[in-house]
Amino acid sequence: MKFTLEHTDPQSKARAGVLKTDHGDIETPIFMPVGTAGSVKAVHQRELTYDIKAQIILGNTYHLYLRPGLGVLEKAGGLHKFNGWEKPILTDSGGYQVFSLAGTRKITEEGVVFKSHIDGSKHIFSPEGVMDIQRSIGADIIMAFDECTPYPCEFEYARKSMEMTHRWLKRCIDRFDRTEGKYGYSQTLFPIVQGSVYKDLRRQSAEFIASCDREGNAIGGLSVGEPAEMMYEMTEMVTDILPKDKPRYLMGVGTPANILECIALGVDMFDCVMPTRNARNGMLFTSEGIINIRNEKWKEDFSSIDPAINSYVSSFYSKAYLRHLTISKEILAAQIASIHNLAFYLWLVGQAREKIKSGEFSTWKDQMVKKVSTRL
Amino acid sequence: MKFTLEHTDPQSKARAGVLKTDHGDIETPIFMPVGTAGSVKAVHQRELTYDIKAQIILGNTYHLYLRPGLGVLEKAGGLHKFNGWEKPILTDSGGYQVFSLAGTRKITEEGVVFKSHIDGSKHIFSPEGVMDIQRSIGADIIMAFDECTPYPCEFEYARKSMEMTHRWLKRCIDRFDRTEGKYGYSQTLFPIVQGSVYKDLRRQSAEFIASCDREGNAIGGLSVGEPAEMMYEMTEMVTDILPKDKPRYLMGVGTPANILECIALGVDMFDCVMPTRNARNGMLFTSEGIINIRNEKWKEDFSSIDPAINSYVSSFYSKAYLRHLTISKEILAAQIASIHNLAFYLWLVGQAREKIKSGEFSTWKDQMVKKVSTRL
Repeated sequence: MKFTLEHTDPQSKARAGVLKTDHGDIETPIFMPVGTAGSVKAVHQRELTYDIKAQIILGNTYHLYLRPGLGVLEKAGGLHKFNGWEKPILTDSGGYQVFSLAGTRKITEEGVVFKSHIDGSKHIFSPEGVMDIQRSIGADIIMAFDECTPYPCEFEYARKSMEMTHRWLKRCIDRFDRTEGKYGYSQTLFPIVQGSVYKDLRRQSAEFIASCDREGNAIGGLSVGEPAEMMYEMTEMVTDILPKDKPRYLMGVGTPANILECIALGVDMFDCVMPTRNARNGMLFTSEGIINIRNEKWKEDFSSIDPAINSYVSSFYSKAYLRHLTISKEILAAQIASIHNLAFYLWLVGQAREKIKSGEFSTWKDQMVKKVSTRL
Repeated sequence: MKFTLEHTDPQSKARAGVLKTDHGDIETPIFMPVGTAGSVKAVHQRELTYDIKAQIILGNTYHLYLRPGLGVLEKAGGLHKFNGWEKPILTDSGGYQVFSLAGTRKITEEGVVFKSHIDGSKHIFSPEGVMDIQRSIGADIIMAFDECTPYPCEFEYARKSMEMTHRWLKRCIDRFDRTEGKYGYSQTLFPIVQGSVYKDLRRQSAEFIASCDREGNAIGGLSVGEPAEMMYEMTEMVTDILPKDKPRYLMGVGTPANILECIALGVDMFDCVMPTRNARNGMLFTSEGIINIRNEKWKEDFSSIDPAINSYVSSFYSKAYLRHLTISKEILAAQIASIHNLAFYLWLVGQAREKIKSGEFSTWKDQMVKKVSTRL
């Protein structure tokens, strides 16, 4: 993997770059649609490519490990071959899901014992095991096994957790560096900065992560309920420490405004379930603001969803039709809204990239943050 | 509307024709995907056109009348404008839904009083009202308001019901002929043969319907639980009486084998929820036979769903991936299976048409009925 920084914004810390992988180039800043179980919910693979213009998607290790399982994925030749997505894939480490989804789990220095949410069966995730699993899934970018602390979180817990995450990281790196990709292309490992909302811990963690000198770095443990200002403060402190020549991935963030603000703080990569999850609840992100498509207001609005967004659904379907489908609980409603929201997110980061290149990012960002936060 | 009979099979009663409407030509025999509430479930409009190659879709008057309602549909300029489907649309009369879906309904000579399944509100469907509603929806082909008798059905009930359906038909024709299309294109009214599974009644009804001399005719009240042989017997008796120069539409039929057998009996048009409903339950119709995609058998079968079918999903996605999505309850599973099954149905009637034109229909049909009924 190779990251090239192409432009930096003179009035903020925003950057535009290109991340080269064996499955193609990723132009940053970028948003990665979430494809939990090997499918971006309600979206066809060709729609990801041609309508949404996704350059990389995310898969969840916890879900893929349980279903379809590593046996099927290995026989298929990895997740790319299994789901037909030929561009880059990033997988999380499964840690977040194990802590938040699995009901009963026990954390020890060795790893985490948890029960499947599907059949209650017992499993163990360890730093080494999670590297092996992600090798089998075949993601281009593999995430370190970390503990994502909740918010709020006591300082003492956050410190101990961060220290364990650092020890786990060493084990991840050790295992990763002693193994190879299974499908003939290279994979890379991103470590994750933790430290909750404590400046000292964040600084300490960022310095440790930076010292590991991997090809890219991630910021975890944010967007878990803390105020946005706190998230921005932590993000900025961390991006100031992380190496400039490596991509920075802020995990699980966020709203369109969050993404713009964090681009301004030097983040290059984002993922979030918000565009797809909210789509399924009838919430649309548009270039003019936020729409609750269930509202009476849209009942006879036959204008297209958002002509500024270059996707089939955004210009083909009207607000009134989408409202009708949503209220009638038609599956097509989820499909349309999911494609549109993802196309909007990709449009937004694409616009940010253009503005960084043309030197207009900061002014544009301030206007845009207001616009995309407006409720229509 | 203009129907041209192009070919007749020498060894059966199968026919190939073209039905011209203001929204384009329909090559018969044809299958019409069901778009209950103005959406073919889980399928985008462009997929209907390019992957499924649908030439006409069906809408349900009962559902569209309740949601989005006639106010919205009229303001949109009709259902075509509302949902963006520019090819022909056929709407049922709402009768079937009123009898089968609405919990409490009261049938009188005037019409049917029923309660909405959505909010319990009270409504009346009369022959005249249902003509007006379908004028507002803007379907190219409008169905007469009839009573679809259940199976089994006492002779006396079937006779009285048929007679009322005939009286209702006169009122439908009267209203239809005294009104005009609302959106600048022409609409046509198909009457419906009833008579349950009684030969005398079916003959009487078919003769009455034929005497009305409309541009097309339908056969209703079949595929409601009677044995297939009985359905074929009734269908053949009716097609022998209905005029040869008008299209014949067998309502709500059926399995791929049912469709092939009824094409051989002289039916030109079909609709059924089976390809989409069964798709959502993991049942696939393929050119090699029927697949229950949940079966363990497909777990590691990485071959495409059905390369014989010329749709994106049928060749792009593997059986193993679709099985995984189905078991994981991913929305994409319903999308893939729905497109595939509909593409298969359209492929099947398209093949039938080719075979009728080349004079090979009967032999091909006998082989194909066996093939499509095989469980793989």
